[in-house]
Amino acid sequence: VSGSDIVLIAVPVSATESTLKAIRHLVNPGVLFMDVGSTKCDVIEAARRALADRAASFVPCHPIAGKESGGVQHAEATLYEGRQVILTPQPFTNPQLVQKATDVWSALGATVLKMRPHNHDAAFAAVSHLPHLLAFAYFQAIAEQPAARDYLSLAGPGFRDFTRIAAGEPGVWRDILLANKHEVLAQSKRFRTMLDQLEALIEAGDAAALEAALRPISEGRSAWSLPVIPPGRPTAK
Amino acid sequence: VSGSDIVLIAVPVSATESTLKAIRHLVNPGVLFMDVGSTKCDVIEAARRALADRAASFVPCHPIAGKESGGVQHAEATLYEGRQVILTPQPFTNPQLVQKATDVWSALGATVLKMRPHNHDAAFAAVSHLPHLLAFAYFQAIAEQPAARDYLSLAGPGFRDFTRIAAGEPGVWRDILLANKHEVLAQSKRFRTMLDQLEALIEAGDAAALEAALRPISEGRSAWSLPVIPPGRPTAK
Repeated sequence: VSGSDIVLIAVPVSATESTLKAIRHLVNPGVLFMDVGSTKCDVIEAARRALADRAASFVPCHPIAGKESGGVQHAEATLYEGRQVILTPQPFTNPQLVQKATDVWSALGATVLKMRPHNHDAAFAAVSHLPHLLAFAYFQAIAEQPAARDYLSLAGPGFRDFTRIAAGEPGVWRDILLANKHEVLAQSKRFRTMLDQLEALIEAGDAAALEAALRPISEGRSAWSLPVIPPGRPTAK
Repeated sequence: VSGSDIVLIAVPVSATESTLKAIRHLVNPGVLFMDVGSTKCDVIEAARRALADRAASFVPCHPIAGKESGGVQHAEATLYEGRQVILTPQPFTNPQLVQKATDVWSALGATVLKMRPHNHDAAFAAVSHLPHLLAFAYFQAIAEQPAARDYLSLAGPGFRDFTRIAAGEPGVWRDILLANKHEVLAQSKRFRTMLDQLEALIEAGDAAALEAALRPISEGRSAWSLPVIPPGRPTAK
């Protein structure tokens, strides 16, 4: 990292502090530090502790793209094209470095959004961290059954897509689920309440009410599509 | 259907009986009846009631392919290529028609598997019906939150894949979840037990135990892939 203009750290979020500590003395003042962590409140605290009077150089980032498989061998040049990258700068973050971070991600084809760290963590507990937790729990609930081998040999494309994120890196997801545990558990509670409601309709054999419950869900999901925003229009949130 | 050699009914499973009743008098003896329902025990009972002394002509089928969008406008000629189709013939089913059904599905590029109806329904509760229920519950738990619009605008590819099946047809899934409710609720119970276990580790902040729990899941899912069997090798299960 010595002599770099930009230092991008991509480690499980709990390793942010030790990683920054290990490299900060190698880096000239004015260099841009960024991360790619899926939680931001904990990462910001870690950067403050590690960088102290140079915390202004750290721009917290979360690119909304990635894959379940890590490592340089899975690198993909167009991974961020048309995707969103969230920045959660603090009042003390150097605004020139925020601009530089925005320029870098934009150059990769991404659209840059700014959010408060807490809002970021609440939103991603809902749309990313909870689904990972559910996919992990679901896959394991199937895999540990005596008939698992037969079941898994019969699974189709729905199963494939529903469980894809259960292949996520254990170290990465251990950290995310712990760093954002209050938001994740709160979202899980909402999910369980909805599951209870649907199961009660199934248990009761209430076909009309079950269909009435499923219809807006099916329509809502059919109407949703992955936000793919033409790059070059930074927006604030 | 009058004059047909093969009648393939593709309706929500609860409509199987009325559909067969409406058409049986139009069809010559010896004609092959098939369905594409995701549950088999209830469909077999419906066919027995509807076809009575001609129930031997009905070969229960479940092709393991499909999409969340129905209708002729979404038809796809290669939908079954390299996919599995399960037949659940009964002791009284005409073996020549079972062979004919096998030939038809094989000609579409699918691999044909035979199973007992109860085993079929247990397996698909695990690998298909429960994930649909979970995806429905999860999507709605997000969609009904005050911040849903913001959250949904931030969701990424993981969310897209995890929730794809929540766009399933309400009438189709109402029927499947009700027809197979005992198996589905039993699988949901297993899932909840696993979710409880993972949440307890998160609640306790036990990083080592959480990683140890996630590792075999991640490895198991990474090692799994969609069964794509070269066509032309019918197998029994």
